[in-house]
This record gives sequence, C-alpha cells and structure tokens, in this order.
Amino acid sequence: MPPLKRFAKPLSVRSLPRGFLGAGVTCGLKPSGKPDLALFVSDRIAAAAAVTTQNLFAAPPIHVTRDHLKSGRAQAIIINSGSANAATGRQGLIDARQMCALVSAALDIRSADVLVNSTGVIGQRLPMDRLAAGIDDAVSNLCSAGLNRAGEAMMTTDRHPKRTARRWTQGRREVRLATFAKGVGMIHPDMATMISVALTDAAVSAPLLRRALREAVDQTYNCLTVDGDTSTNDMVVLLANGASGAPRIERITSEGYRRLVRALTESFEEMVLSIASDGEGASRVAVIRVRGARTVADARKLARAVGRSSLFKTAIHGADPNWGRITMALGNAGVDIDPSQVSISVAKTPLLRRGQPVRHDRAQTSQAMRKDQVPVVISLGLGRAEATCWSSSLTEEYVRFNSAYTT
Amino acid sequence: MPPLKRFAKPLSVRSLPRGFLGAGVTCGLKPSGKPDLALFVSDRIAAAAAVTTQNLFAAPPIHVTRDHLKSGRAQAIIINSGSANAATGRQGLIDARQMCALVSAALDIRSADVLVNSTGVIGQRLPMDRLAAGIDDAVSNLCSAGLNRAGEAMMTTDRHPKRTARRWTQGRREVRLATFAKGVGMIHPDMATMISVALTDAAVSAPLLRRALREAVDQTYNCLTVDGDTSTNDMVVLLANGASGAPRIERITSEGYRRLVRALTESFEEMVLSIASDGEGASRVAVIRVRGARTVADARKLARAVGRSSLFKTAIHGADPNWGRITMALGNAGVDIDPSQVSISVAKTPLLRRGQPVRHDRAQTSQAMRKDQVPVVISLGLGRAEATCWSSSLTEEYVRFNSAYTT
Repeated sequence: MPPLKRFAKPLSVRSLPRGFLGAGVTCGLKPSGKPDLALFVSDRIAAAAAVTTQNLFAAPPIHVTRDHLKSGRAQAIIINSGSANAATGRQGLIDARQMCALVSAALDIRSADVLVNSTGVIGQRLPMDRLAAGIDDAVSNLCSAGLNRAGEAMMTTDRHPKRTARRWTQGRREVRLATFAKGVGMIHPDMATMISVALTDAAVSAPLLRRALREAVDQTYNCLTVDGDTSTNDMVVLLANGASGAPRIERITSEGYRRLVRALTESFEEMVLSIASDGEGASRVAVIRVRGARTVADARKLARAVGRSSLFKTAIHGADPNWGRITMALGNAGVDIDPSQVSISVAKTPLLRRGQPVRHDRAQTSQAMRKDQVPVVISLGLGRAEATCWSSSLTEEYVRFNSAYTT
Repeated sequence: MPPLKRFAKPLSVRSLPRGFLGAGVTCGLKPSGKPDLALFVSDRIAAAAAVTTQNLFAAPPIHVTRDHLKSGRAQAIIINSGSANAATGRQGLIDARQMCALVSAALDIRSADVLVNSTGVIGQRLPMDRLAAGIDDAVSNLCSAGLNRAGEAMMTTDRHPKRTARRWTQGRREVRLATFAKGVGMIHPDMATMISVALTDAAVSAPLLRRALREAVDQTYNCLTVDGDTSTNDMVVLLANGASGAPRIERITSEGYRRLVRALTESFEEMVLSIASDGEGASRVAVIRVRGARTVADARKLARAVGRSSLFKTAIHGADPNWGRITMALGNAGVDIDPSQVSISVAKTPLLRRGQPVRHDRAQTSQAMRKDQVPVVISLGLGRAEATCWSSSLTEEYVRFNSAYTT
C-alpha cells in the first residue's frame, strides 16, 4: 500500500535531529523474537511535553510519565512492546517506576527525567529481569542511527515502521524534527495502542512546547478514528533539546513557533494516514473534511461522527457511494446543522447538493472510490470553520482478527 | 435462534386488544413480492403518542407523523416497507401527506388522525399509484387477525416477525396490549430502521400515554445498540383506544399507570432482544447491566459506551472474555468512575474485582459465552443506580452484507 511503503525506509542520519541517540533491542517479551525494547535519549536535558490517553483506565506507565513530565523536562524515553503493563494494579506502577530507575542508573541521569510506556498484551506483569538485561543492552547500543531501530522496536501488529523527518531554517540555523509512530488501522486485539515519539533539536520553552504539541495533536492524532476507542496506553511525546543552536522559541507569535507547529502538524498528518492505512483489516482510508461549520469544535465533532460510524466504514470498504449513511451519522452527531444546506461529495463526485440528491453514475463513483484514500467532503453552509478526520475502513478481516484472538 | 422463534407465532385473537383491526398486503414495492403495506386501525379515536428518531435528517413521514401527533390522538397508522421515503426532499413530504389522505378517504376519518411511516431503500420516490391501490386493498381486508399480517408487512430484512402480547386486570376489566416490531441486529444496508407499533385497549389520557411510552422506551429501545447509528425513520408509536372498558388512567401515581408502564417495558424488552438477535450478521446478544452508578443517566451512558464499542462487539462474537475491552470502553465514556472500584463479570464468571484481575479458566469462560445471550455485569461501587443495554455482536457477515450491497 503506497502510503505505508513511503514510511518504511529508515530516516537518514543527516535528517535526524542532533543530540539524540537511540537503540532498539530484543529482550524476549515477544514470542516472535522481534525487537521489543526502544530507548530514545537526548545527550542533554530537553524540554518535554506529552499528550496521553484520556481513558480513565490509563495504564501504570502513563501515570509515571505524567508525573515525570510535571517538570517540563526529560532526557530519555523507554518503551517496551509485547506487554502493555496495563490493568496490572499497584505492581504495574512499581514496575514502570523500576524501568525508569534502570535507565537512570545505566545512563547516570535522574530517574524523573525518564519517560516510560509499554504496549502489547494487557493484564500480565512485566518480566523485570528480562527488561533489566534489555535496558543494559540498549544503553550499550545507543547511537544516532539507532533511533530508527528504536522506532521499530515499539511496533506491535504494525506491518511497516512509521517515521518521517522535517527540516527547516530558523535564525539561520537548520532545525530538524524526526517522528516515529506505532499503531495500526486494524487495532491490536488486546489493546489498541498508538504511540508516537517526536524529537527536535529546536530550542523551545516547556510551556510553548506543550502548546505546540497540543495544537498539532488536536488536528491530527485526535482526528484519527480506527474503532472509536482510546487505548489505556496512548501517548504522543515530544522532546526539544536545542542542539540545533537555533534561537530559543519563547513567544507564540514568533515565526519559529509557527514553523514548529507546521512541521509537527505535517509530520503527524503523515503518521495518522500511515496508521489508518496499516493493518491487515484496513482496505482503505477515508479522509473526511467538514467545511462551512460554525466552529472548529462543531466541524470536528461531525467529521468524527461520520468517521466512527460502522455503516460508513463498511461502505468505504465496499466502495459504496452510500451518502445516506453519511447524512445519518451527521444527523446523530449532536450538532445543530441545517439538513437543507448540506452538500456531500465522495471521491470528488457530488452526491448531495444543498440537501437534494445529485444524479451520478453509481458504478463510476464506486470505481473512483477504489483507492487507498477516499476523500469525503461535507459542506454545511453555516460558517467558515473546518476540520479533517481520518477513518479506516471496516472489513471482514478486522472482525475475524478481533474476534478470534485469545480463545 | 430461540429468542426469535418465540415471537414468530401469530398472536391469538383473544390476546389482541379490542377495537383494533389490521391488514398487511402486497402492493409491489419489494422486488420479492412479499407484503409491503401495513395498516393498523382503531374503531374509535385513540389517545396516541410516539417516540421518533432524534436524527436531524428525519425522513418526511416522520415529520408528518409528528405534526399529526400534536393533537394527542389518532385512529390509523399506515406503514410501507420496500422504500423509506427518506432523503426525498419536498416531494417526500407531499407523498407522506398523500398516504394519510388516501387512508382518510377510504376510512372516512380525519387525515390528521392518520400516522405514517416508511422503511426500506432511501433516496427514491414512493410509487404513489401502487400505494393508492394498496391502501384500498388493505382497507377492504381489515380485520382483527389482520394485525398479525400488518406486523409482517412492515418487515424488511427481518428473518422472523416480532410481536408479543400482555394482559392484565385493571378495575376488574381485562386490559390488553399487543406490540409489533421490525428491525434487525444486522442493520439494513441502506437505512437502519426500527419501527414498533403498540396497541392497547386501556383508556389513558394523552399526556400520561406520552409519559408512559417515554418511560418504557428509555429503558428498552433507547438502550439497544446495533451499530450506534439512529435511522432517519425510527419510530415507536402507541395507541390507547379505551375499548377494554377499564377506568381511564389519569394519574401518574395510579396502579393503572404503573401496570401500563410495566407491560410496555416488558413487551419492549422482548422486542429489543428479538431485534438484537435477528439478522444474518448477529451471532449473539450481549445484555450489559451497569450497577452501582451515581445516576441512571451515568449507568446508561456507560452501558451504551460498552455496547457500541466495535472491539467489545467482536469479542462477544468470538466468545472472548476480554475484559480489557470493557474497561477501555468504560474509561472512554466521559463518566467519572473510579477504576479501582470496578468489578466485571461475563457469562456469570467474575473477571475483574475492584480493579484487580480475577484468575479464571479462559476456555471455560469462553464456552459459557457461546450462548444466544451473554450477560455482562459491571459494578461501579459508587451508588445505587443501574441500567441495561442490549448489543448485538459484530461479525464478518455484518461487514460483508453492509459493504457489498448497492454496488
């Protein structure tokens, strides 16, 4: 699938942000023997921010990471795949803290400067002895190119690594941003986790970093609908270590801030598309754009309502230009819209214009929908706000995979 | 499937409410040639109430029915299957009014006393000439036993008719209630419509009838989750014609009112279970009971959040006791709960007790889940409110049917 292959190639060392090292090793958490432990390290203290799951059942490592992020700084991120350390109660908290302590000891940095997460099967305790050995192994393999391997080691059911890099100039210095992500369009049976690590050598104050991350995430990761559920381990983390030597970004009105947000948003958009396309169960991705809303919040709510409708998702899978399912989802979104003003196009074919059906060649429209990405544009005619949501199709494979896993 | 077969038998004439006649005829709206026009008539003016779809894109007949119900009275209900008269714009309104006018003329009753609905394919105009002939045919076939045929004529992809009767005594007179429903666990590809007609010979004031219907619907039809979407044509209608001779129900505190609500709730619960079980794509039904909530609204929100989760629905299909998907859905419901107090049992097997996983034989639990109905009990430990939600499983057949329909 093209949107995936694009991200499969490792990022070249010249595109990776300066002052960051990584490692991805195997410590035996996965039956497959694939890499399962990822370590990302900055050679100096970095400003740090994260957006973590809103699920009330947030996993223990998420609680530890939130706690460590209160300082607005961090120097390392340790992530294991294979086991999610979720629903593990008090022991899970102890184990997550222990992972930070092990990294802290091996790197001689503060434990509170280590962020932690886990992804994989839920409800089982982490094998701490294996993790201890793995962390030693990872630390001794830290290098710049190892960032690519770290990105791969956090994968679970991903078919391809997901990563992208951006470079831009700020104050005559080149600034770099690299983003690594895991998560798939067909969600992992036991825990649907999306993890993204973004590293930049820009210099940014912690409050502005938090704000930039939030702005970018709201337009991207928060508009991705796979099956409407938010995992207990979801996390997007961003470190900025200033190693580029570019002037420090201190003001929201600055050009530097604007460019950082743009680079983050573009990178995350690519990741979202890649995540939505991945997985055996995702045949294609609908890119749902709602325009002409009164507010961005309204536009997002409507785009997401369409994106999470099972009937819509199966229609996308079947390349069926069934706009009735779109109006049904819009009408159920809890947003005040005027049905007589709504226009809808799918795969660039107008299907509804101001509430009235448009004659079209159904077979031809269906043919136009048989692409990796299907654009769906909904115009409300109420205002000027807009939003985009990405939704993976719902397929037989999704159901087969998700119903026949543990038993 | 047992919960279905139970409702397949016609209701005996002695269990049908007095003063009601019905007919179900074929007027040629379905390619299959099956009955497609249902007429329900009271021999006198009846108090009338309805709960209709909250979808903003409500179909034209729903608008006409709402308008006619303002008086709180009605005498006939005309419903066609095969074509939903949805997304048909102004012409759709004219056609829906014309259906009422045709019934009005044939029965010599007021047009405003006729309620109307349609179900089937969307976006196409009703063939009014066929409907006119069909309405004449239906009127000339009106009889008591015809109520069963009317119930069958509103079916679309239903595999079996859904109907149930209740009798109770009020003021020394026997009161009867008959309920007919259509709608399936695997929603019709083009429009997911649920229609229910309840007829009673109790005498009830219009405001109390509305209230009783709302009370019963909130606990039953509004807690049914098939795919999370509300159709543009959904409708539950209730007529009370007083033909039993029982004293008129005028007060909410009266025994008569209480018994009416109970009969309605029990009947609707049966219908909901039958609807959730029906359809080629529904392998089983999860009955999700949330207990120990602070408010009924909270309990309902949580039960529905679990019921609409695709990951939960596929786990039910696969008989997979994957409680992680239940906690995930609970954590995303937007209700303030305490994860450390949550207990969960599935098919009577405790899986989580006050936030801690309970050891259990996974194969044995899975075996216990291989039933038509899977009880899921979630205790929050926060209060005394509770609610139940019914959810059909998500299967490969659902996806196949819904993705491969029109093209």
